[in-house]
Amino acid sequence: MVLWSARRGSRETPRLRPRVAPTDLARVDFTELVPEPVAFLGQAAYIQLEAFENLARAVATAPSIDSKEGLSAAAGVALRKHHALIAELRREGVEPVEVMAPFAPATDRFREATAGADWYELLLGIHVTTGMLDDFFARLAAGLPHEVGDRVRRILDEQGAAEVLQRELGRAIAEQRGLADRLALWGRSLVGDTLLIARSALRGAEPSGRFDEDVEPVFTELIADHTRRMDALGLTA
Amino acid sequence: MVLWSARRGSRETPRLRPRVAPTDLARVDFTELVPEPVAFLGQAAYIQLEAFENLARAVATAPSIDSKEGLSAAAGVALRKHHALIAELRREGVEPVEVMAPFAPATDRFREATAGADWYELLLGIHVTTGMLDDFFARLAAGLPHEVGDRVRRILDEQGAAEVLQRELGRAIAEQRGLADRLALWGRSLVGDTLLIARSALRGAEPSGRFDEDVEPVFTELIADHTRRMDALGLTA
Repeated sequence: MVLWSARRGSRETPRLRPRVAPTDLARVDFTELVPEPVAFLGQAAYIQLEAFENLARAVATAPSIDSKEGLSAAAGVALRKHHALIAELRREGVEPVEVMAPFAPATDRFREATAGADWYELLLGIHVTTGMLDDFFARLAAGLPHEVGDRVRRILDEQGAAEVLQRELGRAIAEQRGLADRLALWGRSLVGDTLLIARSALRGAEPSGRFDEDVEPVFTELIADHTRRMDALGLTA
Repeated sequence: MVLWSARRGSRETPRLRPRVAPTDLARVDFTELVPEPVAFLGQAAYIQLEAFENLARAVATAPSIDSKEGLSAAAGVALRKHHALIAELRREGVEPVEVMAPFAPATDRFREATAGADWYELLLGIHVTTGMLDDFFARLAAGLPHEVGDRVRRILDEQGAAEVLQRELGRAIAEQRGLADRLALWGRSLVGDTLLIARSALRGAEPSGRFDEDVEPVFTELIADHTRRMDALGLTA
């Protein structure tokens, strides 16, 4: 369970409940959110492990050695992110497996739900979900204690995977008639599940409240990035 | 196709055909074999990629997060070996995908044949085949030009995967009645396929000759290592 507080609020009043009247409440953005480091790292680490699993599945089912080779590099990036986050958990003095465990069921379901019906949907699923979530967690890392936040941002900023996925998808879309329409639809359907995972990182097990409205700007940025990512593939988001 | 020659033979006469009468011919050992660097690196790199695929499959199907986490580290080791060998191919000025391609069909079949019927057989399949082949290619690297040979040995010597596999297998064997017998049988059945891959590295597409007899000591060492590996698990080789 990730506990959050608004940075400007009292640390004794967790989450987004500043003691001001609702009408005075500005909407929060990324810089105002304060994640609980251990839970943040645990969820981020497990998400990278699941991204790795989908990338490894893409390697195993790639239609050519060339694609296999490119995707193996992308899988390596996800795995390095995972292991670097695990190292951060150990630095916090906790047992990574125990910290990750509560996030496993929802993340496993998420991975299955975004793996798609064939190799192309699998690739777009990875591209869209890791694109949004890496960015999301990297921005939220701004609210972690200074040093760990910097390290986490550097970990999550490692490039290399998106380029491979974009190249493979771009090539397939150019070659296969009808694939663009199918993938555009699929891309749109991925957004909802991905935002739910992002929101779970913010809310933990909290019941729904005016929270959704407060953090809306956070999600607006994620969706804008998603649109740019789809545009780059010539797909309507 | 990997071309080999006996180190002591003329370089104009490739493979194991020294110009001496058969009766004078001592049996070759690892130090006398001279692999053709590009083909050697291509086959070794592709074998690591396939080992990675099986490890990633083991990660995806692991029965617990703890096992998943351990195996993800082992998958990372195989992936690093693969990418380091790819870097060596680039250093040789060749396109890695083209060099690996001829080895893909046999290696793909080998991976499938050694993946087993369940997670435990998959783990033993990886443990036995990567154990034998990493060792085999590391020893043969002694015949490569000095610098590249040293680098390749260091690449292949990276530890970490075998320990994880041994721990997981040891735990399962201790817990599950009857598993030891089944895995002992499975381990024995893996040796033949693995030796065929090793032999293909020595022989390329060469027709069978007195070659088998000459390189027998090479395989004797591999089999002795295999026996030690099975012993460590309490399995009869």
